[in-house]
Amino acid sequence: MGKVVTFGEIMLRLSTERHLRFSQAKTFAASYGGGEFNVAVSLANYGIPVEFVTRLPDNDIGACALKEMRKFNVESKNVIYGGDRLGLYFLETGAGTRGSKVVYDRANSAMATLEKNTIDWESVLKDATWFHWSGITPAISQAAAEVCLEGLKAAHKLGITISSDLNYRSKLWKYGKQPHEVMPELLTYSNLISGDIDTALFMLGKDKVAPNYMNETSLPVLYDQIFELCPNLTTIATTLRYSVSASHQRIGGVLYDGKAIYNADIKEVTPVVDRVGSGDAFMGGLIYGLLDDQSSKQRALNIAVAACCLKHTISGDYNLITLEEIQQLISGKASGKVSR
Amino acid sequence: MGKVVTFGEIMLRLSTERHLRFSQAKTFAASYGGGEFNVAVSLANYGIPVEFVTRLPDNDIGACALKEMRKFNVESKNVIYGGDRLGLYFLETGAGTRGSKVVYDRANSAMATLEKNTIDWESVLKDATWFHWSGITPAISQAAAEVCLEGLKAAHKLGITISSDLNYRSKLWKYGKQPHEVMPELLTYSNLISGDIDTALFMLGKDKVAPNYMNETSLPVLYDQIFELCPNLTTIATTLRYSVSASHQRIGGVLYDGKAIYNADIKEVTPVVDRVGSGDAFMGGLIYGLLDDQSSKQRALNIAVAACCLKHTISGDYNLITLEEIQQLISGKASGKVSR
Amino acid sequence: MGKVVTFGEIMLRLSTERHLRFSQAKTFAASYGGGEFNVAVSLANYGIPVEFVTRLPDNDIGACALKEMRKFNVESKNVIYGGDRLGLYFLETGAGTRGSKVVYDRANSAMATLEKNTIDWESVLKDATWFHWSGITPAISQAAAEVCLEGLKAAHKLGITISSDLNYRSKLWKYGKQPHEVMPELLTYSNLISGDIDTALFMLGKDKVAPNYMNETSLPVLYDQIFELCPNLTTIATTLRYSVSASHQRIGGVLYDGKAIYNADIKEVTPVVDRVGSGDAFMGGLIYGLLDDQSSKQRALNIAVAACCLKHTISGDYNLITLEEIQQLISGKASGKVSR
Amino acid sequence: MGKVVTFGEIMLRLSTERHLRFSQAKTFAASYGGGEFNVAVSLANYGIPVEFVTRLPDNDIGACALKEMRKFNVESKNVIYGGDRLGLYFLETGAGTRGSKVVYDRANSAMATLEKNTIDWESVLKDATWFHWSGITPAISQAAAEVCLEGLKAAHKLGITISSDLNYRSKLWKYGKQPHEVMPELLTYSNLISGDIDTALFMLGKDKVAPNYMNETSLPVLYDQIFELCPNLTTIATTLRYSVSASHQRIGGVLYDGKAIYNADIKEVTPVVDRVGSGDAFMGGLIYGLLDDQSSKQRALNIAVAACCLKHTISGDYNLITLEEIQQLISGKASGKVSR
Amino acid sequence: MGKVVTFGEIMLRLSTERHLRFSQAKTFAASYGGGEFNVAVSLANYGIPVEFVTRLPDNDIGACALKEMRKFNVESKNVIYGGDRLGLYFLETGAGTRGSKVVYDRANSAMATLEKNTIDWESVLKDATWFHWSGITPAISQAAAEVCLEGLKAAHKLGITISSDLNYRSKLWKYGKQPHEVMPELLTYSNLISGDIDTALFMLGKDKVAPNYMNETSLPVLYDQIFELCPNLTTIATTLRYSVSASHQRIGGVLYDGKAIYNADIKEVTPVVDRVGSGDAFMGGLIYGLLDDQSSKQRALNIAVAACCLKHTISGDYNLITLEEIQQLISGKASGKVSR
Amino acid sequence: MGKVVTFGEIMLRLSTERHLRFSQAKTFAASYGGGEFNVAVSLANYGIPVEFVTRLPDNDIGACALKEMRKFNVESKNVIYGGDRLGLYFLETGAGTRGSKVVYDRANSAMATLEKNTIDWESVLKDATWFHWSGITPAISQAAAEVCLEGLKAAHKLGITISSDLNYRSKLWKYGKQPHEVMPELLTYSNLISGDIDTALFMLGKDKVAPNYMNETSLPVLYDQIFELCPNLTTIATTLRYSVSASHQRIGGVLYDGKAIYNADIKEVTPVVDRVGSGDAFMGGLIYGLLDDQSSKQRALNIAVAACCLKHTISGDYNLITLEEIQQLISGKASGKVSR
Repeated sequence: MGKVVTFGEIMLRLSTERHLRFSQAKTFAASYGGGEFNVAVSLANYGIPVEFVTRLPDNDIGACALKEMRKFNVESKNVIYGGDRLGLYFLETGAGTRGSKVVYDRANSAMATLEKNTIDWESVLKDATWFHWSGITPAISQAAAEVCLEGLKAAHKLGITISSDLNYRSKLWKYGKQPHEVMPELLTYSNLISGDIDTALFMLGKDKVAPNYMNETSLPVLYDQIFELCPNLTTIATTLRYSVSASHQRIGGVLYDGKAIYNADIKEVTPVVDRVGSGDAFMGGLIYGLLDDQSSKQRALNIAVAACCLKHTISGDYNLITLEEIQQLISGKASGKVSR
Repeated sequence: MGKVVTFGEIMLRLSTERHLRFSQAKTFAASYGGGEFNVAVSLANYGIPVEFVTRLPDNDIGACALKEMRKFNVESKNVIYGGDRLGLYFLETGAGTRGSKVVYDRANSAMATLEKNTIDWESVLKDATWFHWSGITPAISQAAAEVCLEGLKAAHKLGITISSDLNYRSKLWKYGKQPHEVMPELLTYSNLISGDIDTALFMLGKDKVAPNYMNETSLPVLYDQIFELCPNLTTIATTLRYSVSASHQRIGGVLYDGKAIYNADIKEVTPVVDRVGSGDAFMGGLIYGLLDDQSSKQRALNIAVAACCLKHTISGDYNLITLEEIQQLISGKASGKVSR
Repeated sequence: MGKVVTFGEIMLRLSTERHLRFSQAKTFAASYGGGEFNVAVSLANYGIPVEFVTRLPDNDIGACALKEMRKFNVESKNVIYGGDRLGLYFLETGAGTRGSKVVYDRANSAMATLEKNTIDWESVLKDATWFHWSGITPAISQAAAEVCLEGLKAAHKLGITISSDLNYRSKLWKYGKQPHEVMPELLTYSNLISGDIDTALFMLGKDKVAPNYMNETSLPVLYDQIFELCPNLTTIATTLRYSVSASHQRIGGVLYDGKAIYNADIKEVTPVVDRVGSGDAFMGGLIYGLLDDQSSKQRALNIAVAACCLKHTISGDYNLITLEEIQQLISGKASGKVSR
Repeated sequence: MGKVVTFGEIMLRLSTERHLRFSQAKTFAASYGGGEFNVAVSLANYGIPVEFVTRLPDNDIGACALKEMRKFNVESKNVIYGGDRLGLYFLETGAGTRGSKVVYDRANSAMATLEKNTIDWESVLKDATWFHWSGITPAISQAAAEVCLEGLKAAHKLGITISSDLNYRSKLWKYGKQPHEVMPELLTYSNLISGDIDTALFMLGKDKVAPNYMNETSLPVLYDQIFELCPNLTTIATTLRYSVSASHQRIGGVLYDGKAIYNADIKEVTPVVDRVGSGDAFMGGLIYGLLDDQSSKQRALNIAVAACCLKHTISGDYNLITLEEIQQLISGKASGKVSR
Repeated sequence: MGKVVTFGEIMLRLSTERHLRFSQAKTFAASYGGGEFNVAVSLANYGIPVEFVTRLPDNDIGACALKEMRKFNVESKNVIYGGDRLGLYFLETGAGTRGSKVVYDRANSAMATLEKNTIDWESVLKDATWFHWSGITPAISQAAAEVCLEGLKAAHKLGITISSDLNYRSKLWKYGKQPHEVMPELLTYSNLISGDIDTALFMLGKDKVAPNYMNETSLPVLYDQIFELCPNLTTIATTLRYSVSASHQRIGGVLYDGKAIYNADIKEVTPVVDRVGSGDAFMGGLIYGLLDDQSSKQRALNIAVAACCLKHTISGDYNLITLEEIQQLISGKASGKVSR
Repeated sequence: MGKVVTFGEIMLRLSTERHLRFSQAKTFAASYGGGEFNVAVSLANYGIPVEFVTRLPDNDIGACALKEMRKFNVESKNVIYGGDRLGLYFLETGAGTRGSKVVYDRANSAMATLEKNTIDWESVLKDATWFHWSGITPAISQAAAEVCLEGLKAAHKLGITISSDLNYRSKLWKYGKQPHEVMPELLTYSNLISGDIDTALFMLGKDKVAPNYMNETSLPVLYDQIFELCPNLTTIATTLRYSVSASHQRIGGVLYDGKAIYNADIKEVTPVVDRVGSGDAFMGGLIYGLLDDQSSKQRALNIAVAACCLKHTISGDYNLITLEEIQQLISGKASGKVSR
């Protein structure tokens, strides 16, 4: 099996500690993350060879991000260098009735100012099995969208499986293009999409719908609209999230493979230590599950949902979880006993 | 609209972190607070011009309290200086089956040793619309009670709205007077009272009652006893708190305006990050609501209850919450999504 | 009343903070603990004179453990010195769906390399009323098991009450002996055993059973098997733990005195601040209850269960709880009010 | 006496703690600062009414900067709002043989994207006595340089004293202009300049010189070149800094008023807790000294040098020092005694 | 040899960390200390049986102080309980040119409100060899001075050696008496005094002098004045402190035994980690030295000076140093090598 | 150029923070290090391909050490797994007159229980240019010494340059062999030795000498004794360390190549942030210098000494320094200016 390549932006994350509000913080916890990199870390933890492609500024903060890739065993040899700054975001972690807040400060980052034809995609992808990207990259700048398209075309040409996380962020998309002007072409290449139906249709320029994920009759009809617009698509999946509060979520998942609907049991997630990156954990679990055993969609979905749940217990963007821990959660072993 | 003036004591608060017991603490988190100052911060956060009147010692710790007032945009120009120490309290934050503990160390503070005729109340209140005090001030010393009365008389003479938070603290009232000897005269001036019925009647020297806040028939009868003793009273309100544990509260509220009972929906508050100051958050929300739209008692109560709930998610005495966040909670938007 | 003597190992505990995984930790919280020492601290907190017997290395880390004994008023005058290292363990505190993990690093500790005939048990126990040990000590080395037997024989000869906590740790017992080869003789001397039925029978070399603690008919039958094998036994008790998640436990307890079954009400324990040592808190409560009033088994069980619940709210191995706090929990007072 | 107005950028400062390198930091200490704001804080500490004019983004990070102004009693009523981000900088604090490092991330900040004619300078300055700016503002963008010129013209027209800190930063000046193309016109309005001779001449477009600050004969000749180019100039001063290491500085100062050279004694500064902002502390001391007693240049220089020395002992950008502490240092009292 | 008894106040100490100013502190490090208790800890570290007599409030903060005594092996069985609060003090640790500051908040403490005839001094002192007190106790209240006198009389009657540390604190002595009205009687009982000559004469009501400690001719003349006023005196000693800065001290010492002057070599102390308690470390070293070998005054002085120097390297009030470390410093071994 | 391979033990390092003594520590900073790994990190920082060979336990703590290798770009593909524990050491960082202390707890570590013939040295070394080991490995166990010899023989056979750091640790060598019984054979293979003359001769079984490093006449005579016993030796070098205190060192270096003595200038190192690993920094600099330009011994020594000095300013075992920073120090640029 070849490596998985993920492509996107890694940011410095500055988060307040112990539920403090921004105005109370005298320190920020410094960590690193970004949707596609988070997927890479998940896969590396599961033993999959994985590489992250991005652009880093040639300064001390960029060097820290590079050390982070190495630490988590994510190959960085095709990272390109340039630009003025590492994108960053501030995170205030909520609790109970108070939600978490993100303040993005990622404009003009090394990744946003990426230029076309600077990544040798054929070389990058030549021994790859899988290529993963998300809707964040085309949302940050015209150039990033274009380089993303380059990568997708190269991967498609090489016959590599392509997974796409929709990752719609309303606070991005500030460079003059709307998702429906950019995403349809990019999504065309997808073999696997992660995201909910209404976001998919919105990005593909279709009318708004209100899917009922409990209705196994209406659901395939809606999904088939997406399959029609994405001719390479074989699987689409989404987390189902029922928010009780910022500290309590109920998490399930749905997967459709053009033929059948698969459901994962709803799990209680409380307390929420850190919600950021839980979608990426789902994605990482899904890719792992499908890479490991293409034949069992249900197993892949179960892994994805369990990974998503476990991510909520971990500080930072990454899902620092082993396959064994995922398996324990799937098999229903209560986590209340101390392992000793 | 003129400013709101609140009068009381601001203390240094020394709290253990991460639920540690006092005997485990090697550091104390240092913050500042006190019932009436906490109300002032709430109002400043809502955009209301607000001033805090107190007495501070002329030392480095008093100077820290002054900086805190400024930071949160609370006017401090009529603060008076003198005395030997800033009052302080120690807080051990409980969890689950273990309650929080306060050890007061506020005797002989600058505020407790305040002297009569040292505040020029006419000058302080001349451009004020509202005056707020609470039952803590007359509980700390004879002099503080007397200066409180000076302020109330001046405010009443100037036709300023007066709000009173009962704030009964059994660990105070050590100077030889009981509440019923002091509070009835002070409460006479109240236009708005916050506190529960049994505390109000106790402070007014009446017999103990056990109000049933769910009974909309018996409630007005009890409330009318208070209205009788407080001729200027137009509104009385209280939080309703159902404690599941130190980490889980159910919070509602009741308001009576001499004519009708208003109720706010019960909200689940879990986890409790910090309960101290949640009554002050209720008071701040109530004053804001009534200042902003005197006509809608229901809206004011809803704001007060939402503010009280949100306070439980914030470390420290103050309710660092925006009107927009209060509005979101009232409108029932689950806080589980990260705003990004 | 004479002193209580507990015998066992005290370790350095290195735990990650704020639910961090081991790979995220840049600091470890350093505390000290071990089952039998934890029991000693509980008893000291309840005002019982108590002494801990162990072996410490003569280095700075051993000296820290000694200071810890003194701080919590546990007599240390019969501690013996020698060996190369203090045993230690690493603790990663889980949350929600992710369980806590212990990595032991206690092999070759001062206590594990203890030698026979180095403790003058007659002198140690001469003014003692009670002797407590647990199944951890015979699990760490052959020598520790043998010294444990010395102590039990001396205590038995002196007519001292002996309590045994089964404390089965599957990660120990590495020196070539299985529990059933060692424990039956040691348990013979027990007057009180704490632990569940299946563990007791397993350690006594009997067949596996699946006790139903809700069935007051079948339970005495199972318990009587244990009574038969332990001729000095008068009381056996166990916590009942229903794990909802790593952060939420439901805790009850059962006690049998050869005649009747006693039950304690199930209590909700959420959030779990720290679960380690909660069995020792149960044991400490039980010993206290029986020492204080031998006649009321129900009261002793209630104290033990309340102590166990409260321990879950406290960081570190020890149950830093007063009798008054236990009494409040037993009497059902909600802990949601701040004591002030 | 009217207020002092300072104009410039306030940034979020993210610094590693305890001399850690960037790659070791898991947290950044978050504080706020910027040359001209630092001067404002100094003056507020000395009791001078002072206002800071800047542009802040309308987000949570901008709101934190605003709270900081208030906390330190710096008037903020003429702050304008807009733009996307608060500029920030990363600081790694060196020690001994390893110097400190700054990584700027301030491009495209709210201040850098300031627009012309958005500040009503006449209104801002109408009750001001003094206007202070520095060479950092014209270095960040063309627009910032232009708005700076607006302010200088308005101040000059109103007859307000103008002080300029040269503050040359080689890592700025990236927008296509060189200092000598921009600074000469701006410096024309200066009544007081702080900075060394070679920087002044470089910014004024003159040839490089190597001034010998110990030579009281050659020094006036060099200074007179600057006086010639800045017709409003009456005073120029500079710190003298002899670096032994990152932890040890020797600090003195020179002032020239067109007639005479004044020198301040060299002081030993070790350890250096934080060097950033020490030039601003000098400037703040100088302004205070001249405002307080225009007639004594020597006293003003002594205050400026003492303030600069004391700043090195304080974490963060600001000089949190009282006049009394400055006076003690000037009078030579050793600081080794604990004041108690 | 019997125990040493020290008598005085133990306070909660709240200090800012990393040289922060009070206005920057979000946490205070919490420790405990007080001159006479610090001496007790020193002696316990040297293996001397030692007991501390004080009055503690019966609250959680008092209980923490008690745990501290136990931790450091200082007997607490004669501590009396009562009063409302534990005295406390705030400490801001300076650096370089900025001195440390103490803000006392110890008025009305449990110790200051001590009452006469509440300590059974005969019982306390019956198996004691040495009694130590300092000039702080009579400075805090009339009652404390009177109880101190009770203790001194009892000790004198029992023939116990009495040591007195002058410890003049100008911020105390607020209860209406001056040192010269109280101290002469108390000092009469001293066998050993620690403190400088001018302080001794000031406290004894004599004229101010300016002793030259380098002049071995004039020194005995001055010392003899003190010997005359204190008929039981056999030894008087003082540290010599030359302050280079808050971070750099030069420390020596002088001792006079009525016959000869002894000097200890000056040692460089840099950096100063924490200066508070260094005089108590000197006192502790002196008492140990004289207890261990009465015949060698030079050795006792050397120990005292070395202990004082080493204290400057340790955070908190106590001198956590072993005799072996003191011996190494005296023998001149450079501490630059890591012991491994 | 091929890779450098270093072989040894990596440990968990648990250090007290802010100069605290062990008994004061409530947290330990957790980092990783060991002489030969530290050298590998230095080389990786200088851009040299480098691999570390060791044995790690297959547990969470071992996994942390592995992540650390990856983070710092040290190849780990030939690490072998097994054993029970990662060795660890406790570090108390001294200051001024108080030295630092190490408490080793590394017995029975994965590395100490390494077995012969478990590393395929030919495969490991096949594309290597340089092999580095130190005297620590043969000091921990017989097996480790034997595996070390295997590696040396393989490297020698392959014609790879071998460097040896003497690294004598008196607290090791506990397994029954003395250095002179083991080291002579191992040192035979050395091309480069780092260490002082007396240690070299002691390890080689020769008489004790007291070398005078300032005497360029006597020095070659002593060095030639070592050259005689180590037939492959071409270069020997040592740091020269003059300890003023735990916080102040003077550092120089000497190198001898069988023909000439080279000296590096003494540099002042104050404050010492962390001394541990400074010898490894010297070694890393020396290997880099000789790899980069074999012809200039003086340049290599200068790099080694500068690296050693800079290491003292960095927390943790590793020298996180760039070549540019080394060059700046060599060229004498004072580090007092902030780079901005």
